[in-house]
Amino acid sequence: MSQHVDLEQYVAVIFTSKRSIDSDSKYQEFSTRMEELVAEQPGYLSHIGFRDSQTRQGITVSYFKDEESIRNWKVLDEHLEAQRLGREEFYEEYTVRIATVNREYSWSRQSGL
Amino acid sequence: MSQHVDLEQYVAVIFTSKRSIDSDSKYQEFSTRMEELVAEQPGYLSHIGFRDSQTRQGITVSYFKDEESIRNWKVLDEHLEAQRLGREEFYEEYTVRIATVNREYSWSRQSGL
Repeated sequence: MSQHVDLEQYVAVIFTSKRSIDSDSKYQEFSTRMEELVAEQPGYLSHIGFRDSQTRQGITVSYFKDEESIRNWKVLDEHLEAQRLGREEFYEEYTVRIATVNREYSWSRQSGL
Repeated sequence: MSQHVDLEQYVAVIFTSKRSIDSDSKYQEFSTRMEELVAEQPGYLSHIGFRDSQTRQGITVSYFKDEESIRNWKVLDEHLEAQRLGREEFYEEYTVRIATVNREYSWSRQSGL
């Protein structure tokens, strides 16, 4: 069985992207810095990210406490500069989706829940 | 600049998981079949998935038209059986989050939007 957690709503930013073909070591630096920066933001909860080096497709999902936290993160100076760099250098395309998490279920082998 | 798309709300199922250590070829079959099956469901829009073979962590985000589509998918016989198999064999742990997509922004190099 899985465990149903009743919780206050929180917000997910689903960022899917396709990398442009070059810019590898620079991208690593950029990506690491963004992961540090987002984790420092007020209202930040957690994030998880993946990229397939073959297809150059990737996803990062970041969770925040509320919409206000996301609005502040969106217009943070260093993040605005990163968004510009992303368009100029790192990405072929991307989509950002803002979603309200209504409920969640977790299961783990250890707890059996 | 990025393009802001006003759209009707739709729903995301964010499935994050950690694979158990063995069961590779069987998991591939399982995973491929689930991708086929979800794409056949009424109200299905699209999905995207990644797994890191080092950490065994993965994510699949599926988008559906509405909550009803997700409820039907959740209790579909073959999917229920898959959920059981997932717990018995394939996963160490997983979390399912159900979220309402409120808005989205897309950019691509080609369109410049």
